[in-house]
Amino acid sequence: MGCIAIVGLGLIGGSLALALRGFEDYEIVGVDVSQPTLRYASEHGVAGRVTSRAGDVVGQADVVILALHPQGIMDFLQEYRDQFKTGALVADVCGVKGAILQAAQVLPEEVDFIGCHPMAGTEFSGIEHAFAGMFRDSHFILTPRPHSTPEHIALLERMAEYIGCKDVYKTTPQAHDALIAYTSQMMHIIAVSVCDDPMLFECRGFEGSSFRGCTRVAALDVGLWTQLFSLNSPALLEVLDRLLEHLTSYRQALAAGDADTLADKLAFSAARKRQMDLPGPDLLG
Amino acid sequence: MGCIAIVGLGLIGGSLALALRGFEDYEIVGVDVSQPTLRYASEHGVAGRVTSRAGDVVGQADVVILALHPQGIMDFLQEYRDQFKTGALVADVCGVKGAILQAAQVLPEEVDFIGCHPMAGTEFSGIEHAFAGMFRDSHFILTPRPHSTPEHIALLERMAEYIGCKDVYKTTPQAHDALIAYTSQMMHIIAVSVCDDPMLFECRGFEGSSFRGCTRVAALDVGLWTQLFSLNSPALLEVLDRLLEHLTSYRQALAAGDADTLADKLAFSAARKRQMDLPGPDLLG
Repeated sequence: MGCIAIVGLGLIGGSLALALRGFEDYEIVGVDVSQPTLRYASEHGVAGRVTSRAGDVVGQADVVILALHPQGIMDFLQEYRDQFKTGALVADVCGVKGAILQAAQVLPEEVDFIGCHPMAGTEFSGIEHAFAGMFRDSHFILTPRPHSTPEHIALLERMAEYIGCKDVYKTTPQAHDALIAYTSQMMHIIAVSVCDDPMLFECRGFEGSSFRGCTRVAALDVGLWTQLFSLNSPALLEVLDRLLEHLTSYRQALAAGDADTLADKLAFSAARKRQMDLPGPDLLG
Repeated sequence: MGCIAIVGLGLIGGSLALALRGFEDYEIVGVDVSQPTLRYASEHGVAGRVTSRAGDVVGQADVVILALHPQGIMDFLQEYRDQFKTGALVADVCGVKGAILQAAQVLPEEVDFIGCHPMAGTEFSGIEHAFAGMFRDSHFILTPRPHSTPEHIALLERMAEYIGCKDVYKTTPQAHDALIAYTSQMMHIIAVSVCDDPMLFECRGFEGSSFRGCTRVAALDVGLWTQLFSLNSPALLEVLDRLLEHLTSYRQALAAGDADTLADKLAFSAARKRQMDLPGPDLLG
């Protein structure tokens, strides 16, 4: 029987442990430093076995999945760099890849590291919000290293299928990070910025679905998102600058009282949105 | 039997006609210039009677509800100013109030005008998307004039209740327009600006729920929103400038690599969002 260790039993790690129950011939071992989390995991059968002692598990596990916050992943790699089993696969599941792949360079050559990002989540955090269906129909992004083994890539592909992901994409950390800066991180910066408006509380109860849709993710996990933003700031700054430019361009058309320009701009943007919503293959640049 | 004329059988006018079926002792007459719309309305029983000749109806109706685009409302008021029945109530149901109330000053003193905004809608337009449940649980905002009669206000309140609105708020056009600039119009400007990004199509299929929530309303009705934005540009410019300021402030914390400031800012914004989502009374400033 093989062993998959999941380090960090929060929303994602907990969900992953639940979703991996019964996967092939692997025992799932959950690792966390929090006693309440371990107690919850035991009581709810989140993993086959749980422990707070990562050192006991790391040397035996065939696969170690780091489901910590980004800084936690980087610290873990540094601390346990020499304790992984020879030939083991180490993977992470966090939302930035460039900084993580860079940190993984501390690992010895006989330990394989593959960056992963199952593109799922909710606005909640913690094991009590974990559920096995978390990854259903989501994309699973892989950023292998040049010398990652086909066997390990194939194993992650089978895991992705088992937990319900609809497909697996292999890409570079750079392409991943640019994608995530635009489709996810910028949405969070918009949401919090909208909530900074002094009218927020005055309007309570009068916000429509567009406002709720735009601001839903503002109630974010501060520690996690500070790290995600900081570790991806070059890509995020690029898309933010483009957003500021596009917003300012709308602002100028409005301020000029130029209804024709405004209508042209709206027609252009609305057509892009309609085209994006047409049925068609998913793309990844 | 009284007569309520609904002028404009689009998404909102059509839904209003459907929702008002059987309201007290009123016949509902639908008015539209489009023959396909009138045919659809007849075939689907959207109104008790339909006609393309507004002139035939305006002089007989006790209540005329203008469910046109803002410019259409202003043009209609100008064109039919002397043809409304003495003592009639004229109301509109569009999303800006200051400009409409100003336009309504052309009406003779014996015609009552009350601005209305049932806060409901979808990203679609046209009678084929109309449905009777459109207004269920939404707010109905009234902006009466100083000499609006209590009877007319009470009539609109009964109508709002009949069509399923959860409450009726009376406010000023200025307060309404500031509210709507922030909670709705700015969400649309954000959505179209996000869709202007060159990465839009590359990311198709990889956008998560935050991206979809933020951009859903980008596929907007260009003619309508050009008018809504233009007629409310002072209030919209104010909130857009505040948004640009808040976004820029996040941008600066990121660019400075200042994780502490970033974390402080995120904690502040996330707490505001959580507080807004606490159960409590709806407020209107």
